Amino acid sequence: MPPQAGPQPEDPASDRTARTGFWLVGARGGVATTAAVGWSALTRGLIGTTGLVTELPALAGAGLKDWDQFVLGGCELRPGRLRDSAAEAGIPPALIEACAADLDAIDARIAPGVVHNSGPAIDELADEQADGGLARRFPTPRAAVDAIRADLDRFREQQRLERVVVVVTASTEPPTDEPSLPPTWDELNATLTSTDCPLRAGSLYAIAAIESGAAFVNFTPSLGASCAAIDDLAKRSGVCHAGRDGKTGETLLKTVLAPMLASRNLEVMSWVGHNILGNADGRVLSSPEHKSSKLGCKDAALQSLLGYSPQSLVSIEYVPSLGERKTAWNHVHFRGFMGVEMTLQLTWQGHDSALAAPLVLDLARLVDASAGRGESGALGALACFFKSPCGAPLAGHSEQFAALLAHYA
Amino acid sequence: MPPQAGPQPEDPASDRTARTGFWLVGARGGVATTAAVGWSALTRGLIGTTGLVTELPALAGAGLKDWDQFVLGGCELRPGRLRDSAAEAGIPPALIEACAADLDAIDARIAPGVVHNSGPAIDELADEQADGGLARRFPTPRAAVDAIRADLDRFREQQRLERVVVVVTASTEPPTDEPSLPPTWDELNATLTSTDCPLRAGSLYAIAAIESGAAFVNFTPSLGASCAAIDDLAKRSGVCHAGRDGKTGETLLKTVLAPMLASRNLEVMSWVGHNILGNADGRVLSSPEHKSSKLGCKDAALQSLLGYSPQSLVSIEYVPSLGERKTAWNHVHFRGFMGVEMTLQLTWQGHDSALAAPLVLDLARLVDASAGRGESGALGALACFFKSPCGAPLAGHSEQFAALLAHYA
Amino acid sequence: MPPQAGPQPEDPASDRTARTGFWLVGARGGVATTAAVGWSALTRGLIGTTGLVTELPALAGAGLKDWDQFVLGGCELRPGRLRDSAAEAGIPPALIEACAADLDAIDARIAPGVVHNSGPAIDELADEQADGGLARRFPTPRAAVDAIRADLDRFREQQRLERVVVVVTASTEPPTDEPSLPPTWDELNATLTSTDCPLRAGSLYAIAAIESGAAFVNFTPSLGASCAAIDDLAKRSGVCHAGRDGKTGETLLKTVLAPMLASRNLEVMSWVGHNILGNADGRVLSSPEHKSSKLGCKDAALQSLLGYSPQSLVSIEYVPSLGERKTAWNHVHFRGFMGVEMTLQLTWQGHDSALAAPLVLDLARLVDASAGRGESGALGALACFFKSPCGAPLAGHSEQFAALLAHYA
Amino acid sequence: MPPQAGPQPEDPASDRTARTGFWLVGARGGVATTAAVGWSALTRGLIGTTGLVTELPALAGAGLKDWDQFVLGGCELRPGRLRDSAAEAGIPPALIEACAADLDAIDARIAPGVVHNSGPAIDELADEQADGGLARRFPTPRAAVDAIRADLDRFREQQRLERVVVVVTASTEPPTDEPSLPPTWDELNATLTSTDCPLRAGSLYAIAAIESGAAFVNFTPSLGASCAAIDDLAKRSGVCHAGRDGKTGETLLKTVLAPMLASRNLEVMSWVGHNILGNADGRVLSSPEHKSSKLGCKDAALQSLLGYSPQSLVSIEYVPSLGERKTAWNHVHFRGFMGVEMTLQLTWQGHDSALAAPLVLDLARLVDASAGRGESGALGALACFFKSPCGAPLAGHSEQFAALLAHYA
Repeated sequence: MPPQAGPQPEDPASDRTARTGFWLVGARGGVATTAAVGWSALTRGLIGTTGLVTELPALAGAGLKDWDQFVLGGCELRPGRLRDSAAEAGIPPALIEACAADLDAIDARIAPGVVHNSGPAIDELADEQADGGLARRFPTPRAAVDAIRADLDRFREQQRLERVVVVVTASTEPPTDEPSLPPTWDELNATLTSTDCPLRAGSLYAIAAIESGAAFVNFTPSLGASCAAIDDLAKRSGVCHAGRDGKTGETLLKTVLAPMLASRNLEVMSWVGHNILGNADGRVLSSPEHKSSKLGCKDAALQSLLGYSPQSLVSIEYVPSLGERKTAWNHVHFRGFMGVEMTLQLTWQGHDSALAAPLVLDLARLVDASAGRGESGALGALACFFKSPCGAPLAGHSEQFAALLAHYA
Repeated sequence: MPPQAGPQPEDPASDRTARTGFWLVGARGGVATTAAVGWSALTRGLIGTTGLVTELPALAGAGLKDWDQFVLGGCELRPGRLRDSAAEAGIPPALIEACAADLDAIDARIAPGVVHNSGPAIDELADEQADGGLARRFPTPRAAVDAIRADLDRFREQQRLERVVVVVTASTEPPTDEPSLPPTWDELNATLTSTDCPLRAGSLYAIAAIESGAAFVNFTPSLGASCAAIDDLAKRSGVCHAGRDGKTGETLLKTVLAPMLASRNLEVMSWVGHNILGNADGRVLSSPEHKSSKLGCKDAALQSLLGYSPQSLVSIEYVPSLGERKTAWNHVHFRGFMGVEMTLQLTWQGHDSALAAPLVLDLARLVDASAGRGESGALGALACFFKSPCGAPLAGHSEQFAALLAHYA
Repeated sequence: MPPQAGPQPEDPASDRTARTGFWLVGARGGVATTAAVGWSALTRGLIGTTGLVTELPALAGAGLKDWDQFVLGGCELRPGRLRDSAAEAGIPPALIEACAADLDAIDARIAPGVVHNSGPAIDELADEQADGGLARRFPTPRAAVDAIRADLDRFREQQRLERVVVVVTASTEPPTDEPSLPPTWDELNATLTSTDCPLRAGSLYAIAAIESGAAFVNFTPSLGASCAAIDDLAKRSGVCHAGRDGKTGETLLKTVLAPMLASRNLEVMSWVGHNILGNADGRVLSSPEHKSSKLGCKDAALQSLLGYSPQSLVSIEYVPSLGERKTAWNHVHFRGFMGVEMTLQLTWQGHDSALAAPLVLDLARLVDASAGRGESGALGALACFFKSPCGAPLAGHSEQFAALLAHYA
Repeated sequence: MPPQAGPQPEDPASDRTARTGFWLVGARGGVATTAAVGWSALTRGLIGTTGLVTELPALAGAGLKDWDQFVLGGCELRPGRLRDSAAEAGIPPALIEACAADLDAIDARIAPGVVHNSGPAIDELADEQADGGLARRFPTPRAAVDAIRADLDRFREQQRLERVVVVVTASTEPPTDEPSLPPTWDELNATLTSTDCPLRAGSLYAIAAIESGAAFVNFTPSLGASCAAIDDLAKRSGVCHAGRDGKTGETLLKTVLAPMLASRNLEVMSWVGHNILGNADGRVLSSPEHKSSKLGCKDAALQSLLGYSPQSLVSIEYVPSLGERKTAWNHVHFRGFMGVEMTLQLTWQGHDSALAAPLVLDLARLVDASAGRGESGALGALACFFKSPCGAPLAGHSEQFAALLAHYA
């Protein structure tokens, strides 16, 4: 172990082996902002560890880095300051004030984001900023990848980081035409110089991360690294990645309730979910093209857990009065012995960012540990964090959580 | 093994190795009645297997007896006919009619029940029958045990049964003073001739069953065989038993939702449950003395699954208009990252008998298999069926279900 | 007044002053079928009067005709028998059997329905019948009106009726282009011979009824008689009419809850409703074009009752497993003193036909009384029955109900 | 109108005819504290008028005094400061700070409270304060009345008030033995010197207020002035009073929903309410003796609105984690046409103080206007504010609200 070490990020004598950088894509969105404030508050002892999976006693021996061994940076389309996005996210003013110096330091490490084939709602978000905000656009996917890679290299160099983890928390993109993607990296790579390449920005971040040797986490329903060709690149490069679509609320409930109903041989006839939420995520999802990406993921979970496909409807509505509060109503109609019909209704009143942000921190911390162990390709052991896990079959939450402990604890 | 065998119950040439008797205590209550109609309908192919755990594909190779290898009998305090209790339980008239011959045959095998220290509500149930109904009362526990044992021996002899399984589905008794019970069978046995013995009828059925070599299942919240001394008897006698308190609705939900919240390191601050139901079970539970037995069981589950004790309240109200329909409202107040408060509400609209009856049939079938394998003592592998499992620590439903499959599949 | 009278419908000596005919458009739909069985069961004393507004003690002195003074007939697109549609609607077999003779008699009085500009979902319903079912199509609106009028005249003649009331319970049509309609009957009438006339079948039934002197009730969200020109015709003809869109469930709740919130000066920020239902009405409403007609009506109610427009969303999904059961979840987000945010959630589990059918019978009975008193034009006193009442401003349910009693009691 | 006037309470030249004093009994409880902060914030223009009935446009011409024409004072058992009780009640720190000068001035006018026959939970509240807190106890009811009267006279004199209104917002007392109370004031008055008199402190405040010429409002479920003898005193004294039990949440819903169900002739079979709340009110209500006072009021409302008595259960549980948040779950089981069973469930998530405090301000303002008009006895026109209104029959909320407008607008 290197003897020389130091606590200050910008100190040239600091031990670069000791620190890992988190590069947050969508760094001033509600989830990333809450993660940033939360990270700062954790390192300063201002909040407890409630909501953090990696702080469970069962993972105490997992050898994860301490919170103060991480450095945060990222990129964003909209100008502004984390202090202000924290206020918008409803974080108490006193906490923002206490973390302001850290937030300002992170702001200084936020680069302009890349928009590429990102869909109408994200285009609109970027365009409504003065002068197009911070959005950068490139003629080909390869040009975008190279620009992102340069950002990551600069972050690693300037902060003298041992490792970098890129986490995408940006708005949901429309679905990518997956069947048209080739199965190997060599074939996909060849298309990156063409304007016909169907990849969207979320996948270009994945490629750039992997090419630069950074682990990658896709917290959104967008494609990200969830295709054979990018996984191929990751395996060849000895880089690990995890995704897809953070499991924060309604699906978390589904992945424990559906196995329960299955274990009793009860027959689900219909499962209807209606979600209302008022944050920027809700606004993007209210765009029909983006919505379909979100809804697609949810149906597969139910089918996989029950072994058959009951009628399943999930609708999402943007209700600005709710802000970060997300309310999900679920109505499950099922049949039991002798055909008797019964119902289960749930109302989940969650806080979107407060549920998602600690998972983002947990994921970065766990993926960093995997990177430290030299793991590569999709990390199936992290399936419990995702609605559409890569590298593992869909399974009940309880099995997924047991797999997490088995891998890391 | 006896060589003579044959398919007809009363046929002296029948193969006694092939058939097992189910002795239902509380045989004309809602749960046992529904189990009886359901068993008959299954053997006649009139209903499907929805709701039966033992019919899951995962247990197809468990070597369980077929439904037509069972013979039903039991005991009951109230006179009457299963046809009538089936109508009261809301079973469709056409199905009752189709099963009437079987129900009449079971009626002919129903003996008078034993009331002993059973609490005011059960006393009242018995007393409101003309001439005290079918209730038998005895001066000492030992006398009651011997009478029950004689019933079981007669059932085994007359029906030429290979094995017998006793299942208690009677109304909930008040709590037994457990700390006053001695830890060994020899000591407990010595008290059975005294009128000071605190055991109630449910435990006397357990002792009688085990002494006669019959496996025992306690589907109620009453003590049954859940004390060290009776388990000692079972182990010495090479008899197996399972219990306590069938997990049909609200607790089933708790045992998947509490582990889910724990797996996310979310802090439950309060968990309030309010149950309304309109059947005879609801009537008995509305008696304060009996209610405390029911409520005690539920609190322990939550503590065990979360690792700490949030405020927990469970109330039960008798609402006759609901009949067998049981509605449970749960309000879970929890805290996440940065102390953000959230809630989860559930409304479970179940049908009490339709949920419980298939579990009674499953348990008898599984316990019979365990008896066939020579297992003795408390069957912890059956924990997923119970709110207060004997022979296994309290655990999440998913772990319990995995243990079931590991043991039997 | 004609001198000859008598109790039997087909008896030429019967007293035509004593009897009123109900002509149900959509006569074998769930609502009309339930109304028909209910009417028969009422006249035979097989059911009580629960659910019937006109049987409230407060209306005992209103001088309404007795149930056996009505004769039912109507028209329908689909072939079949009321016995079968009653079974589909989930009416108990024993009740259908007891009313079968009446149902067969009504079947004999059901004429083919008219499809005209009725929208894709109704076209499809008609076309999927063998040979186009009973649907009749006409080249111009005027031809359709004349054909309907001939049906009504025949019904009146053959049954020797004093009065006829036409009630539309058919599937919801897409919205009509109301601004394009002229304000007077003379102008509208002139367009009926043109294929450009935007009126749909529901309005043609209204015109035919009024021209033939029959009172008209529009129980659906379709336009019906709710435009100035048709009201003009009704007033000139001395005919009364009522409508629009029977208020059976979710809106009934809104029209008591919104005034309550307004009376406390609480500020509604958003009101979200999600409806799931499984009957034919649900199927038609799941068609986007038809859905917009339904949703339009609901928004206006809220604005009118609160005096401002909170965000309001109402979604409707077709969930076949629910059959006639309709579940509506409402989430009301409001603000009180000092800006404190609160919520009210409702789950209404109703039975669509059981709620609507008695209102159809009530309306026909009350409109018949109005016709007997010589009232003409839109009957605002019936506003409590409708989501979009004609002839009265939108108001709280309580005020509407008081107006009903003031007019009829 | 007197020409000389002045804004400062203690200014000896101020116009005593222009100002009214509010004397809050339980002045540092959650409701009174919120009323005090709210009153201050209103006069300073810091909050809007949402939640205040008297600020509805319909009451704009009612000639009510402006908020700055009121002076607040009161009495309390517990020492402390309103700033602190405001923080406990969850009022935002910035708002407390902005109102701090007013709160300190009110604190200076808060006298020690009177405990007399107030039940075990209130005794305990008083006793747990250091040195018995501020509680004063007297040997006879008459001595207590005279002491309270002296407080009120002093308040009137020192603040040079035109009128005084006493509002009881203290914790709920156990039920008073009403049948034992004599019907006339002369008889009741004679018992006040006896220690056998069953009156509790809440009624002694009523008597003291009326004897001193102050109008009286009982916002609690305690007896207060709701008996014939005290009403007799009020009428003879030319003083008006209003009460009993502020209608803030669950009952408010009942008084619109029950009339709605009745207007459709739907038959309610059972109505179950389960309330959970975490403030001091919840703590006192969790005491069985106090709870019965609360529950009694609710049942009568339902019977009166429906015209019959369905099974009705209301339970209240103290759940500290909820603080001022009060959640009420209601399950209404009803029957419609042809006996079809349906349900309505509600979850009301209110904030107890934010709902109650504006009603306290409204009541004081309206009762002040009635006093100014010379009205005496129970003010039935204020029934819409109460669960158990004095001076008016129980009625639907809508009728009650119409009566309010008819009387004051």
